[in-house]
Amino acid sequence: MLIGNAIVGQSGGPTAAINATLAGVIKGAFESEAIETVYGALNGVEGILKGTVCNLSEIIKGEADLELLAHTPAAALGSCRLKLPKMDEKPEVYEQIINFFKENNIRYFFYIGGNDSMDTVAKLSLYCAQNDYEMRVMGVPKTIDNDVMGTDHTPGYGSAAKYIAASMQEILRDTAVYKVKAVTIVEIMGRDAGWLTCAAALPRLNSDVAPDLVYLPEVDFDMDNFMEDVRAALEVHPNVVVAVSEGARFADGTYVGASAQSGVTDAFGHAYLSGTGKALELAVKEKIGCKVRSVELNILQRCASHIASKTDLDESVMVGAAAVKAAVEGTTGKMMTYVRTSDDPYEVECSSEDIQKIANMVREVPRDFINERGNNVTDECLKYIAPLTYGEPDIKYVNGLPVHFVIK
Amino acid sequence: MLIGNAIVGQSGGPTAAINATLAGVIKGAFESEAIETVYGALNGVEGILKGTVCNLSEIIKGEADLELLAHTPAAALGSCRLKLPKMDEKPEVYEQIINFFKENNIRYFFYIGGNDSMDTVAKLSLYCAQNDYEMRVMGVPKTIDNDVMGTDHTPGYGSAAKYIAASMQEILRDTAVYKVKAVTIVEIMGRDAGWLTCAAALPRLNSDVAPDLVYLPEVDFDMDNFMEDVRAALEVHPNVVVAVSEGARFADGTYVGASAQSGVTDAFGHAYLSGTGKALELAVKEKIGCKVRSVELNILQRCASHIASKTDLDESVMVGAAAVKAAVEGTTGKMMTYVRTSDDPYEVECSSEDIQKIANMVREVPRDFINERGNNVTDECLKYIAPLTYGEPDIKYVNGLPVHFVIK
Repeated sequence: MLIGNAIVGQSGGPTAAINATLAGVIKGAFESEAIETVYGALNGVEGILKGTVCNLSEIIKGEADLELLAHTPAAALGSCRLKLPKMDEKPEVYEQIINFFKENNIRYFFYIGGNDSMDTVAKLSLYCAQNDYEMRVMGVPKTIDNDVMGTDHTPGYGSAAKYIAASMQEILRDTAVYKVKAVTIVEIMGRDAGWLTCAAALPRLNSDVAPDLVYLPEVDFDMDNFMEDVRAALEVHPNVVVAVSEGARFADGTYVGASAQSGVTDAFGHAYLSGTGKALELAVKEKIGCKVRSVELNILQRCASHIASKTDLDESVMVGAAAVKAAVEGTTGKMMTYVRTSDDPYEVECSSEDIQKIANMVREVPRDFINERGNNVTDECLKYIAPLTYGEPDIKYVNGLPVHFVIK
Repeated sequence: MLIGNAIVGQSGGPTAAINATLAGVIKGAFESEAIETVYGALNGVEGILKGTVCNLSEIIKGEADLELLAHTPAAALGSCRLKLPKMDEKPEVYEQIINFFKENNIRYFFYIGGNDSMDTVAKLSLYCAQNDYEMRVMGVPKTIDNDVMGTDHTPGYGSAAKYIAASMQEILRDTAVYKVKAVTIVEIMGRDAGWLTCAAALPRLNSDVAPDLVYLPEVDFDMDNFMEDVRAALEVHPNVVVAVSEGARFADGTYVGASAQSGVTDAFGHAYLSGTGKALELAVKEKIGCKVRSVELNILQRCASHIASKTDLDESVMVGAAAVKAAVEGTTGKMMTYVRTSDDPYEVECSSEDIQKIANMVREVPRDFINERGNNVTDECLKYIAPLTYGEPDIKYVNGLPVHFVIK
């Protein structure tokens, strides 16, 4: 058994579950006989390079702290967007990191993050091996986008999906109150993959309401077809709701959000980036002329922990602890993954994958999860997503607001 | 005691609490010996004019239905924006309504809505009295804007304030993860009064985070002062968060949201309405040049029932039931109000006010609730708002989504 200290860091964009994974790593480390002190790297690998770390063994006093941490959105340790240089180009960076590990007897490094973080994990693991420093480096993915290869889904996606589905259900109620013809366009995150936008259709499984039309980046967007779809939907009922991915693009690869920009500048002469929803709002106004508005769900999609999925948070804790267990058992240079072992009942196990096999690839929504016309998702798609959103964590409120755990 | 049937309707924009008031009216009517059948007018007074009503005495089966209804956002009976004409101009409209009342032995009309609905209440009450039809007509206000005179606060405001405060706290966590200088501008609803924007500062009372700057329509907006404020805030910490009301305006009365429109047109030549947040985003980009983005909280502010305030919902049920009690006891042509009888502990009673006294007036945020510089709110302001957001209703979820009550 490799005995020593551990350090954990967070990187990339925030999610509602990234701190749950952090809590899982801390819990796993506290319970492991191999790990002595657990440090936190502030602002990811930047914290290791600058020596700005905190002592989580002292900061986290027990289960109650871990639970609050798991219910806190965004990265409690701070984040960064640093990608390590190539080893042969800037070896001094690697030397600095390994020296930090040696000086602090750090034998375990857990990195919770996106593609760049997994790249860091692979490089550091290799570097330590080449330099005869016994070290276990493990990556745990996180992204609301759910577009990582090699895993059934990503930690953070289920909570974002739940927020989107619940918000969409509320927007559907809101839009239904008047009898005037109106189109509401809801723009949802996802530049390269439409998983988050798929979640907007989840109310269809349990509710009497659902968005009429759903457009993903995986299918070429056609403005004429869109207008035809909206007109047809307006024949069925007066309040039409459209869910569209920010990444929706035309057959020539240009983003729909870019279509309203031609000739549009602000008071200072800058090109005005309208967003996909706004572009479609303007198009509907022009071509159909009915009441129309666009709603951007925006950054709340990735940080609305008050309506996180219990399944997502529980799994995120589980995969953090599983990363520690795998590392202690000898695994290094890998990314933790989820394997769905059963659909009904929904069951998931943790495993790990070679990072090289999955790096820099985008897992798109498969074509058979989208209807033939390309303007909605299939029930099969929703049945894949739904269990990831099940369950409500017991969020602690004081004076009307959720309590967050703050690492100073 | 005036014995007969009752009808209830909803009007104006949705809130997360308008159905709680509906549940209160139904509950009050069910419990009253004076009221036989309770009808619901579909799409407000339009339903009375068109005879499209439903029988709530049959639809609502018991307490569980009432509770689900109270937790459902937007207007379950549908809404309208109809303002009744003057009595002497179109007497036939009034005749039609009174005939409907007579034919259905309706002696009680409860109207949950905004200014136009209170106007309807006053007119109908007067018309019935003048035409010797004994009738009790009562209004219950609802607006997320909290800008109604004669009441301590409005049903619906507390839930919107809680959504805004919780979302702001999450946005503050999200923006804090990187160390790069960045400004985030959050645009909040409220065309005429800044009450909703005040709520964005609520995290300050309990949390380690709060928006740095808060701008309301009640204070003239000055672009130079704003830039100075943002620059000063960026000196204190890298992630500056600004809450701004959509109704913020310059000393000459033009909206800040209009400032980015000059010369801005879309691909079709339309003037491009940017919104207040977007206008400030462009201004910061131009003048300061750091990373900047704007977030519009949008319609979720008025329909996010999944994070409604229990205090707001409980009071909304209470005021609905109190309207029935007041009507049965002989009150007519009035609007129900809240009177805050104690600050600590927070206590509220229901009363009623003459509609004429309060109609067409906007209750603004008082100047002493705003700091001298006009770029934040005082603790006194937050202490007034905070108790309205306390408590979390026990929302029922099935398969990951809140369950709503649907009146078909």
